[in-house]
Amino acid sequence: MIDVKSISTHCTRTEFVGTTVLDTIGLVISGIDDTLLKEMNVGMKYHALGLFSSRTGAAGQITAIDDAVKATNTEVLSIEFPRDTKGWGGHGNYIVIGGNDVSDVRHAIELGLELTKKNAGELYISESGHLEFTYSASAGAALQKAFHAVPGEAFGFMAGSPAAIGLVMADTAMKASAVNITCYMTPSIGTSHSNEVILGISGDASAVKAAVLEARQVGLELLIGMGSYPEIPGTPYL
Amino acid sequence: MIDVKSISTHCTRTEFVGTTVLDTIGLVISGIDDTLLKEMNVGMKYHALGLFSSRTGAAGQITAIDDAVKATNTEVLSIEFPRDTKGWGGHGNYIVIGGNDVSDVRHAIELGLELTKKNAGELYISESGHLEFTYSASAGAALQKAFHAVPGEAFGFMAGSPAAIGLVMADTAMKASAVNITCYMTPSIGTSHSNEVILGISGDASAVKAAVLEARQVGLELLIGMGSYPEIPGTPYL
Amino acid sequence: MIDVKSISTHCTRTEFVGTTVLDTIGLVISGIDDTLLKEMNVGMKYHALGLFSSRTGAAGQITAIDDAVKATNTEVLSIEFPRDTKGWGGHGNYIVIGGNDVSDVRHAIELGLELTKKNAGELYISESGHLEFTYSASAGAALQKAFHAVPGEAFGFMAGSPAAIGLVMADTAMKASAVNITCYMTPSIGTSHSNEVILGISGDASAVKAAVLEARQVGLELLIGMGSYPEIPGTPYL
Repeated sequence: MIDVKSISTHCTRTEFVGTTVLDTIGLVISGIDDTLLKEMNVGMKYHALGLFSSRTGAAGQITAIDDAVKATNTEVLSIEFPRDTKGWGGHGNYIVIGGNDVSDVRHAIELGLELTKKNAGELYISESGHLEFTYSASAGAALQKAFHAVPGEAFGFMAGSPAAIGLVMADTAMKASAVNITCYMTPSIGTSHSNEVILGISGDASAVKAAVLEARQVGLELLIGMGSYPEIPGTPYL
Repeated sequence: MIDVKSISTHCTRTEFVGTTVLDTIGLVISGIDDTLLKEMNVGMKYHALGLFSSRTGAAGQITAIDDAVKATNTEVLSIEFPRDTKGWGGHGNYIVIGGNDVSDVRHAIELGLELTKKNAGELYISESGHLEFTYSASAGAALQKAFHAVPGEAFGFMAGSPAAIGLVMADTAMKASAVNITCYMTPSIGTSHSNEVILGISGDASAVKAAVLEARQVGLELLIGMGSYPEIPGTPYL
Repeated sequence: MIDVKSISTHCTRTEFVGTTVLDTIGLVISGIDDTLLKEMNVGMKYHALGLFSSRTGAAGQITAIDDAVKATNTEVLSIEFPRDTKGWGGHGNYIVIGGNDVSDVRHAIELGLELTKKNAGELYISESGHLEFTYSASAGAALQKAFHAVPGEAFGFMAGSPAAIGLVMADTAMKASAVNITCYMTPSIGTSHSNEVILGISGDASAVKAAVLEARQVGLELLIGMGSYPEIPGTPYL
């Protein structure tokens, strides 16, 4: 019989890169099994894979990976949205990236972990629901794949739960400045049945940022109006 | 950096209507943004929208909105079922209604909040699972949209989790009296992968009510047989 | 008004068979209602149905029912995967079996409950995520229906959450020995949006067992590397 306490919490596996807030783990596989790679449906180009996976949060982590991929010689292969968040109403994330060089991939995952910690500052979780925001001055491949962001343009993201709060945030953002919708998601459309309305916007940097900030203000007022203050698993940076 | 504690729990936004049990929030948007309205796929007829959204429960809230819409000059535009319930095995809800007059819409949402509190009396949540029941003497547009209820006829609803309990309740209801099935839902069919079997029934008022009451009796016996008593977020009214 | 405390926790309904770990309930319906049976889409052959349903876990219970059906004159009619686990990132299960004789069906459900308790020994649930493993020396109809196992061949199952851990486990299993993939599932493919990568493998008994054990070792190292030790709702048996 296996004794789990004989295993150390300081993981020494070569696959292990690190962990961070929101039950996020970063891993690398230096040479993925060929049969498994075929099943994964992410192409056969890369055998060095980086894995990034959280129980809670998606946009912050995808924005982190977006920056990490831009800064390294790696490519985003797949982004999935598990319906998770440890009992809250939202998503987790599961991201696969690839590269020709395992050290590039490892470096991208390390960057992703670091930036996730920063981006978690715009996640607000109360007794009743949650809000998530991100902003990128120049969207890359991960934000394009996940939310149809326009590459090279500013991108803003907002999610509110319960879903009704997300729609008021989206309406506020659209009225705040001239931005374009890149994605609109609801419990039945585009999400994995999460209790959220999500809006992605692109456009001029200052317009996108202003829209996200106005959405954040109304979102926080409504969420706090439900009776409790949110916890923030980081430091707000917007 | 934003200080969330500077925001009051007494929300004064014009969008805010109120909150009630089950993490339910009611909101109105007096003039929705046109671009966003197009994305919402609820038609372009109404720009005054009412939003209703809960973390936990669906049938009670939909029955509440059903009555609220009947009592006001408003229309149900969409009903969605997030997979939520704060860690339990069921749904939340996200409902959009519309009207020509924002005061009608606001009144409908107020009524919906009030009736949700009453309907929460037939939600039973234990350590192991949950049961939900509703009964309407005369189904309206919301119950038709959500559960294919026959408008103007009596409608009964039952959901049991873990799912097996729901099937025994459904079987009991069908044997209890001569009623018609309007909807049958399971983890893979019709639900958002909730851990429930759901049955909607229509027919003669006394037959429907009798079927719901017999289903409730067997459902409670089985749920309590799992070892713990349910909490009830209201007062049973059936 | 109903008083739930008037109902005993010792359930005496004829439908009640028993309960076990992981919020599992076993039930029988001796003569299911015909109209309801038609809605269920499980064929009209059997009117004696056995129901098996849990909030948490799927492979252990399906393996239990697999053995139970082999040992009795019953047949698996449907297997569904609710997105549940009481706030964790995985599935529950909802299984319907049928038989000509209600005592056969009841006996199968009793066996399923007993074996579920044993199989729960290979479920590892920590603060951050979970792992699940099963092994069958000779797969039957339930494992075939749920995971495309090859009947009569050895079958192994592994699921890891957050999903990235599951992929490293899958890669480790494929490299450990010569086995065939029977199913590969991710948050978007095959699961009900759970936060898991799942692999089912078939082949030679010792190869399958070795692959599962190597996957378990790496999975536990990574899960524990996230910072906390898992609870095990049984006794590890592999």
